[in-house]
Amino acid sequence: MYSFKNDYSEGAHPRILNALLATNAEQAEGYGEDPFTLRAAELLKQRIGRRDIDIHLLSGGTQTNLTALSAFLRPYEAVVSAATGHILVHETGAIEATGHKVIAVDVNDGKLRPEHIQAAVDAHTDEHMVKPRLVYISNPTEIGSIYCKAELGQLSQVCRANRLFLYVDGARLGSALCSDENDLSLSDLADLVDAFYIGGTKNGALIGEALVISRDTLKEDFRFHLKQRGALLAKGRVLGLQFVELFKDELYFDLARHANKMAGLLRNGVARAGYSFLTHSPTNQIFPILPNELIEKLQKRYSFYVWSKIDADRSAIRLVTSWATQEEAVRQLVEDLRG
Amino acid sequence: MYSFKNDYSEGAHPRILNALLATNAEQAEGYGEDPFTLRAAELLKQRIGRRDIDIHLLSGGTQTNLTALSAFLRPYEAVVSAATGHILVHETGAIEATGHKVIAVDVNDGKLRPEHIQAAVDAHTDEHMVKPRLVYISNPTEIGSIYCKAELGQLSQVCRANRLFLYVDGARLGSALCSDENDLSLSDLADLVDAFYIGGTKNGALIGEALVISRDTLKEDFRFHLKQRGALLAKGRVLGLQFVELFKDELYFDLARHANKMAGLLRNGVARAGYSFLTHSPTNQIFPILPNELIEKLQKRYSFYVWSKIDADRSAIRLVTSWATQEEAVRQLVEDLRG
Amino acid sequence: MYSFKNDYSEGAHPRILNALLATNAEQAEGYGEDPFTLRAAELLKQRIGRRDIDIHLLSGGTQTNLTALSAFLRPYEAVVSAATGHILVHETGAIEATGHKVIAVDVNDGKLRPEHIQAAVDAHTDEHMVKPRLVYISNPTEIGSIYCKAELGQLSQVCRANRLFLYVDGARLGSALCSDENDLSLSDLADLVDAFYIGGTKNGALIGEALVISRDTLKEDFRFHLKQRGALLAKGRVLGLQFVELFKDELYFDLARHANKMAGLLRNGVARAGYSFLTHSPTNQIFPILPNELIEKLQKRYSFYVWSKIDADRSAIRLVTSWATQEEAVRQLVEDLRG
Amino acid sequence: MYSFKNDYSEGAHPRILNALLATNAEQAEGYGEDPFTLRAAELLKQRIGRRDIDIHLLSGGTQTNLTALSAFLRPYEAVVSAATGHILVHETGAIEATGHKVIAVDVNDGKLRPEHIQAAVDAHTDEHMVKPRLVYISNPTEIGSIYCKAELGQLSQVCRANRLFLYVDGARLGSALCSDENDLSLSDLADLVDAFYIGGTKNGALIGEALVISRDTLKEDFRFHLKQRGALLAKGRVLGLQFVELFKDELYFDLARHANKMAGLLRNGVARAGYSFLTHSPTNQIFPILPNELIEKLQKRYSFYVWSKIDADRSAIRLVTSWATQEEAVRQLVEDLRG
Repeated sequence: MYSFKNDYSEGAHPRILNALLATNAEQAEGYGEDPFTLRAAELLKQRIGRRDIDIHLLSGGTQTNLTALSAFLRPYEAVVSAATGHILVHETGAIEATGHKVIAVDVNDGKLRPEHIQAAVDAHTDEHMVKPRLVYISNPTEIGSIYCKAELGQLSQVCRANRLFLYVDGARLGSALCSDENDLSLSDLADLVDAFYIGGTKNGALIGEALVISRDTLKEDFRFHLKQRGALLAKGRVLGLQFVELFKDELYFDLARHANKMAGLLRNGVARAGYSFLTHSPTNQIFPILPNELIEKLQKRYSFYVWSKIDADRSAIRLVTSWATQEEAVRQLVEDLRG
Repeated sequence: MYSFKNDYSEGAHPRILNALLATNAEQAEGYGEDPFTLRAAELLKQRIGRRDIDIHLLSGGTQTNLTALSAFLRPYEAVVSAATGHILVHETGAIEATGHKVIAVDVNDGKLRPEHIQAAVDAHTDEHMVKPRLVYISNPTEIGSIYCKAELGQLSQVCRANRLFLYVDGARLGSALCSDENDLSLSDLADLVDAFYIGGTKNGALIGEALVISRDTLKEDFRFHLKQRGALLAKGRVLGLQFVELFKDELYFDLARHANKMAGLLRNGVARAGYSFLTHSPTNQIFPILPNELIEKLQKRYSFYVWSKIDADRSAIRLVTSWATQEEAVRQLVEDLRG
Repeated sequence: MYSFKNDYSEGAHPRILNALLATNAEQAEGYGEDPFTLRAAELLKQRIGRRDIDIHLLSGGTQTNLTALSAFLRPYEAVVSAATGHILVHETGAIEATGHKVIAVDVNDGKLRPEHIQAAVDAHTDEHMVKPRLVYISNPTEIGSIYCKAELGQLSQVCRANRLFLYVDGARLGSALCSDENDLSLSDLADLVDAFYIGGTKNGALIGEALVISRDTLKEDFRFHLKQRGALLAKGRVLGLQFVELFKDELYFDLARHANKMAGLLRNGVARAGYSFLTHSPTNQIFPILPNELIEKLQKRYSFYVWSKIDADRSAIRLVTSWATQEEAVRQLVEDLRG
Repeated sequence: MYSFKNDYSEGAHPRILNALLATNAEQAEGYGEDPFTLRAAELLKQRIGRRDIDIHLLSGGTQTNLTALSAFLRPYEAVVSAATGHILVHETGAIEATGHKVIAVDVNDGKLRPEHIQAAVDAHTDEHMVKPRLVYISNPTEIGSIYCKAELGQLSQVCRANRLFLYVDGARLGSALCSDENDLSLSDLADLVDAFYIGGTKNGALIGEALVISRDTLKEDFRFHLKQRGALLAKGRVLGLQFVELFKDELYFDLARHANKMAGLLRNGVARAGYSFLTHSPTNQIFPILPNELIEKLQKRYSFYVWSKIDADRSAIRLVTSWATQEEAVRQLVEDLRG
């Protein structure tokens, strides 16, 4: 049974484990003040091309989202998100648990557009309503689509015009940035949005997300928020080391490219076998629509999620690839699709 | 300028003010342990026909909703509400501020139906999602519609089958219960739902809502919640006295009947003048669709909300009547509508 | 049985009820935008002698404290209070329920001093600890003592030097300002502290506290906080009217002076009878130390709290006077003390 | 420069890193449903000797405390803790941020006693106050002392008599259980308290704490709380694997014994050099009182915290040993102490 269920099925890229081993006996400061974390921040600043950003390393996506959003907002301020947004669907109300409403916007392809944001702003007119203050998007989105630079620029513009923060959940950011259809860079992100995170867990790390804060007013006292939310690891070195390893050369991007390449093979295989897709996804999650019989057959050899029912005979499934996906397994699956 | 803007434009029914005057010099216990509050609870229990209910008097609707809902739920439990629900639209995220997500359900007429609830339950499957635990409805709804006994019975059934609490926001409950189309009694409410409140502010009181808790497990330590949320008035007598006055005879219902009668006169006037309505409302809020020119003309003599745009030439307005609405003003408005 | 248990045993001063009656039929805007509330704010600004302050009317002390403090602080910021502070003892953790720690400082006489504040600041050194950000004091304190102008000036200085807000709970502010030992004015308060409230409930109003915000950065969007906490009454007129009546002339101060005068008669009576006091209180709460036998005898004719045990034979009791306390009852109690 | 600053200066015990390497390529379920986590839970149940307990693995102590305590309490319920408790001092108000007051009890040796708990219960009498509901203790305490079985039994008794939960923060539990003075077992803990956690981070793991819930009513839906607080790691395997390695034989205890042995060498060295201690600590943190000159000299070769000032000439320092502390370094420090 081979799993295409998600991109966190395996451990970490071997280079990361080797780095842990190599430095294991060194004594280091706790709570993210160790040399590894400092170097990771330095490497990310270089990569992004800006020194006036703050970097914080956290252990998971939900933790990063809830810590950042609750730090950035006053009590009556709300978040605007696509109804498919991870914070609205799959984080057990973590944002609301910090006191903030998340306003859901219905969208077709997982992506927010300027008119959605403007409409949300316009619908909230006075103190009897929450005040929209932060726009949450995911790149890639939860269904694999990505934002191009022009689109993100437009979102940025409408946010700045309306005094809204723009925040990007980058749980799978590597896959977005390495997509064939991508024209965004890390520097663009830092310029266009106020904060975003670079996901490690789903791209080769054991655990770890790197939060980048580019807006000055959001930086103050952020370590207090980290500690209060239980997000400041005693052995912060574990996070630091991983991001050093991922960003001291091209490893982070190489891993994402591999995941995308494997998804591409799958995509082509699905298409050649004559099947279509639920969504246009140029990243490491694809959503083929298959006959239910075929799905049942595949389930005997592969694990994956059945995503949604299409009609009486067909369903969409989700196939996810990762840095660790084996090409052999992909080729076999493609073959089995055609069989 | 006469106001049809809402049902809290005037002070209180004169009998209430007289009762305040008559008892003013009496010394009484504080924080809702005074004889007036105790008597109000007794009168409500008699009226409802059950002794095994708890009654708490609070000062406003948002306060009642946030205190009750946060008391009833564990942190990861969520509320299901029509997207038009007051808690979702006009309470500045007060429920989310206590840590709970409110799941919005799109409906046409302001009313939740069993299938909406079942769908919300079915969509939340595991610990990555909030757990729906309480259904919030308003009766009458925010757009004037009401639940009949059979409908409420069905909601009650689906809630009990799914281990959900059912809660009714009764900010305008008097108007619902006195509507020509109503077949629900206060006793029915106490039997079919787990908690509801009887709105005083919008039906003749200065301030005050009476929360009725009929489900045993929700009663424990409720006064701690009241105090913690700032809802326990030192001079609780002010609340107690008003509910004594409203419920020692038929006053509460007489006031609601007057409001409904005035709304009926308006409704007939609008219909006779050849105009239609945005919603079917048998209660004290009506939503006529009028030509914009006529609306502008009316705005010179009356204050009211323009509710929504219908097309280039017409809009829906909201007219609200109350215990204090003068028949003369209603007749004049009807005349002006036809002029 | 005559009550000296508290200062909220009776209703409201008759002039307030008469004002309610006189204006009852007038239609007015809701939610604190009515002419009465606007006029109350205007009168308070005149009385305080500053136009650059914001005034908000709320219904009770706990509600005012929790709404203000949670509005003023970021999530990791904490409050410093005397261990006897009302928010630490008698508000059911209302401040903590909004997410903020309250740091307790042991004091003898209910009063914080600069060295307490400096010590609290010094003890909190990094992001592993909360950051003290607001100092909460009560004037008069919970045990009747008051701050003189020099003392408040020193607190103000240490707060400003340490970037702390200074907030005064003025539930019984009238009694403090009208005490024989007082040298503070409302203007002094507005100058020396960042926010304070003028208590109405315990000085002649039915319900109502007037929050004064003098620090600019604390004013923004405060009505959103009010609404979210359930503190924005639909019939805000009820609050407005009362403060108009209390401050359109000397009524607020006359009522406090009466309460203080009655407390003075009691104080002298206790002293003449040969008894001492638990605390030095120049306001409307006094704490005589009496033989337990005498206490039991008094309890047959008066209600009051037994405050604390002194030794095997004696206890301190609390006697509270108010605007409504009858001189005859006071004289009788004094006589009974000596009996 | 050798560090005695804390017990999280190094990485993980090599066996743990080897286990990560050995299993790295295996695909496993996410979010703690992997075979490693299941086996860790199984091993812990065997070790504790009870099957009716729930085990959850989290990434750090503050996260564990805040998730557990907020899950166990209703909004108005409070925690009782020694004033020196980690949650009161060094977690940035994390518990208060979830809405709960922590009642501080002054103690001399870091340990709560039955009379402290009873006094806290007795002091909270009605709904104007929080309701104490959970007692938080640390074993070992923050200053190195431990609870013996009889003491814990007494705490357990007073808690059960007063309907309080008893919770143990076991960040350094290994060191307590392996202390020469200890007579408590893991089974005793599960029997006497309602929940406790077994600290991994400070005893050889990279990250990880194992929360044990023995009280049935506290178990329900706990994974919802984990997810909502950001504590459910996608690669839960990382936590599972470590606890398998620590508990599949005696590793966890061997590591703690080493730390204690190193502390013992230090303790003896300090005593032989003629110095005394701030506290009696039979665990891996000791607090020698040294002349300031000597401290300055030591600071050139070792890093450690200066804990508190004793008098003009002397201060107490904190020396912490761990599974990784080198005996050679300890011997050198002892020599330098005498030098």
